[in-house]
Amino acid sequence: MIGARALLGTLTSSGVDVCFANPGTSEMHVVAALGTTPAMRPVLTLFEGVATGAADGYGRMAGRPAAVLLHLGPGLGNGLANLHNARRAGTPIVTVVGEHATHHRSYDAPLQSDIQAVAGSVSGWLRTSESPADVGRDTAAAVVAARGGRVATLVLPADVSWSDGAAVAPAAPVPARREADPGALRAAADALASGQPCVLLIGGDACHADGLAAADRVARGTGAKLLAETFPARMARGAGVPRIGRLGYLVEMAQHQLAGARHLVLVGARSPVSFFAYPGKPGDLVPDGCAVHQVVPAFGQAAAGLAELAELLAPGTRADVVPAVRRPDLPAGPLTAESAAAVVGALLPEGAIVVDEAVTSGLGLPDATAGAPRHDWLTLTGGAIGYGLPAATGAAIACPGRPVWCLEADGSAMYTVSALWTQAREGLDVTTIVYRNDTYAILRMELAQVGVEPGPGGARARSLIDLAPPHLDFVALASGMGVPAERADTAEDLAAALGRAAAEPGPYLVEAVVPPLVP
Amino acid sequence: MIGARALLGTLTSSGVDVCFANPGTSEMHVVAALGTTPAMRPVLTLFEGVATGAADGYGRMAGRPAAVLLHLGPGLGNGLANLHNARRAGTPIVTVVGEHATHHRSYDAPLQSDIQAVAGSVSGWLRTSESPADVGRDTAAAVVAARGGRVATLVLPADVSWSDGAAVAPAAPVPARREADPGALRAAADALASGQPCVLLIGGDACHADGLAAADRVARGTGAKLLAETFPARMARGAGVPRIGRLGYLVEMAQHQLAGARHLVLVGARSPVSFFAYPGKPGDLVPDGCAVHQVVPAFGQAAAGLAELAELLAPGTRADVVPAVRRPDLPAGPLTAESAAAVVGALLPEGAIVVDEAVTSGLGLPDATAGAPRHDWLTLTGGAIGYGLPAATGAAIACPGRPVWCLEADGSAMYTVSALWTQAREGLDVTTIVYRNDTYAILRMELAQVGVEPGPGGARARSLIDLAPPHLDFVALASGMGVPAERADTAEDLAAALGRAAAEPGPYLVEAVVPPLVP
Repeated sequence: MIGARALLGTLTSSGVDVCFANPGTSEMHVVAALGTTPAMRPVLTLFEGVATGAADGYGRMAGRPAAVLLHLGPGLGNGLANLHNARRAGTPIVTVVGEHATHHRSYDAPLQSDIQAVAGSVSGWLRTSESPADVGRDTAAAVVAARGGRVATLVLPADVSWSDGAAVAPAAPVPARREADPGALRAAADALASGQPCVLLIGGDACHADGLAAADRVARGTGAKLLAETFPARMARGAGVPRIGRLGYLVEMAQHQLAGARHLVLVGARSPVSFFAYPGKPGDLVPDGCAVHQVVPAFGQAAAGLAELAELLAPGTRADVVPAVRRPDLPAGPLTAESAAAVVGALLPEGAIVVDEAVTSGLGLPDATAGAPRHDWLTLTGGAIGYGLPAATGAAIACPGRPVWCLEADGSAMYTVSALWTQAREGLDVTTIVYRNDTYAILRMELAQVGVEPGPGGARARSLIDLAPPHLDFVALASGMGVPAERADTAEDLAAALGRAAAEPGPYLVEAVVPPLVP
Repeated sequence: MIGARALLGTLTSSGVDVCFANPGTSEMHVVAALGTTPAMRPVLTLFEGVATGAADGYGRMAGRPAAVLLHLGPGLGNGLANLHNARRAGTPIVTVVGEHATHHRSYDAPLQSDIQAVAGSVSGWLRTSESPADVGRDTAAAVVAARGGRVATLVLPADVSWSDGAAVAPAAPVPARREADPGALRAAADALASGQPCVLLIGGDACHADGLAAADRVARGTGAKLLAETFPARMARGAGVPRIGRLGYLVEMAQHQLAGARHLVLVGARSPVSFFAYPGKPGDLVPDGCAVHQVVPAFGQAAAGLAELAELLAPGTRADVVPAVRRPDLPAGPLTAESAAAVVGALLPEGAIVVDEAVTSGLGLPDATAGAPRHDWLTLTGGAIGYGLPAATGAAIACPGRPVWCLEADGSAMYTVSALWTQAREGLDVTTIVYRNDTYAILRMELAQVGVEPGPGGARARSLIDLAPPHLDFVALASGMGVPAERADTAEDLAAALGRAAAEPGPYLVEAVVPPLVP
């Protein structure tokens, strides 16, 4: 058996059955083998960042890894930003990077580059299969590593892929993720029961429904303030789930939320730091004099840790959940970020997966959707924009029965816009709202903070931030990739468009024209 | 003076006056400073791969570096593929990567990643400015390094950018590029004069007009076979320039061209290796028993080395140049890759810059354009597709008086398609022909070589290679980014469309529907 077949056989026997791919010559034996491996679903993307972002969305929703097939160092480079986001999300992904044949690497051929160095920057596990005999074992190990919440990268030289001597390896056992540390758990329980001001900050699978319920019980039982991390990989929301706020993105907001805390209990979350540094503002957001208790590390068994805390601190209680669907009324009139959020809140369907890369245009969304039917919310964990359209693509493949709503900023959409083509090809039920405000609005805010004034210099600086002229026409862009689309200028337009999107099978895009947050 | 101002002041005083940018929060002080630095032209791109590819096209045509401004590790990752191509082209580029503040790096904030590792894979020079006092000196050193034909990467932490204590550094002297090695030059001259079969393989600036003329004189004076490297960064062509063939991409073709050679003389070119490895085919393309003479290394002073050889071996002679414009007739009827090439040959304007990423659809272009008016031809040096539209953008900015024709494959176009938006915003005179054959045709060829047969497995494998359904509509895509566009199904359509493109200011796109090379 050649290495390529052992790769695919081991992946499928280990439960990996979707492969997002943008292959080239050095991966051609894998492509050929995919042809005869019906258990593996191949999904073509037109750009590697779509493949890696789709694998991120898939992994967050499926809870198990997809494979990604990339072409040498440049293909990996194109996929790097969304692997970065996946790393920050703790998403399981098996990345397979085709490489030149082992006997070809010494020639420094045009496509040769340092794959290891680049892959190392995002991978929690990284190995090169140097011979066909290694491929089965290495692939099984990659799946195990990925299932621990990591990007696992397997570099596969072309001759290892095409040569005989390989064999399918059985699925390897997946070690349990890290549990709560008993000592830390007791210390945290003591802190939470102390009557002193406490903040319980949760992340990872603590933001799934069970984790939220346990966290809510702990908070209500102890009086602790409960917050989710700023950018959860996946958060359960809506009717039947406790409503939990997130730690603010802005330094001042987060400081306000954490002010006065004497204990910060971390379950599946990292200790809070500011997203960016600013002159004169702190990076470490833990208040002075506040003790930090890390109970479960990021990507550990956070929901289980919270269940233990709830058993200790609030035995026999029930979580306080959003009791029933309570939506905003459908608004009318000119479209704004606020009215667009109300339309989303009014129409978000039961069981929706929301992929949120709306940035400043999305500020009103959490409130507007809090009373929507039960849904899951995916956020931009690593700050590398261009994750939304691909992640929505992957989420739709992971959950074919569920509607996916991708709430996307215009600037961010353009990094990986060809995800729309894959949505059309695969017939995925993804409804995309692109908020078109013709600017990187968040950077207008940042530029104002830097003290740039109106005038010629300000206009020159703004030319690196504003997206018009010419304005992007997302209806044309979507149509060019086979996705039906329309523009909405009013709240009524948007509601009607979302109605048509829901009535049609396959993807649909609505360009929602909204004013920017900062004029 | 803050670091950001010293960066820009030093760049402009060192002759760098264009900055392709896709900035974020950590680069905001540089953006603000760009506002008040009229000597620096800021050019916004919607994706980092467009910025780096534009800098590649700019550098190849201007002969001096542009700056690129990128946002942290993920921004660098998005730009990596085209930096890879630039590295292979020996293009001077100064890459500035904004990084978290020095005091913020320890927090491992969401956007933190190993910038050094990723940058190292493409950079011939790499440094982080750790304090404002270093910025001027580091920037001047980066420009010097870039001028040696390298990607020079300067990592600029946000606090170094926003803090006082920096100063503009004067331009630093640029060391001469490596010249011919006198011993190697004599040995090569002896070999060329020996009467034994010789191949003279040239690259780098030997492919500019003077180098080609000298190479032609050497070849004619000695009977050596003259070839240019397979993928020159920039090659002079057309009337008034010697017509020189390129070493073939396919192993069999290159072997045929080199067969029987006893001496291979390399001037500005690397010793030939196959682009990819294939089972049973050689990687090193130097024939058995052939001596290799490296006279000038890649990115050295190749044209000057050839002038010395010409003086030694063919004194007083003149090069045999294409004597006058001699174009193919305008064809009629259905569009094919061949008839499209004839249309290009019939209409290519005087002084054009051709950016060639047509891949299989472009096989007929070299012949069809050999008798066109004088023009320059840029090729995909590093094999990382997605260079064409960005490189055309940068070439147009480097040479505002010259028409740029971008000959682009449909698959390759989609990696960096938002370059069209930058062309529209900047009003650049770029005419793009997208050859739409709805497949990665070169991979059809490779897949056939791997032995994939028609049938269900073949169809599954082909689903990772074919770009339809849905078919990409480049007229819609271009229109969505402000570039006027039309479709051509016949040779007459294409000629008429190119006429309209020439008559209009600013960019224009023609989707040329052609059958794929492999059905």
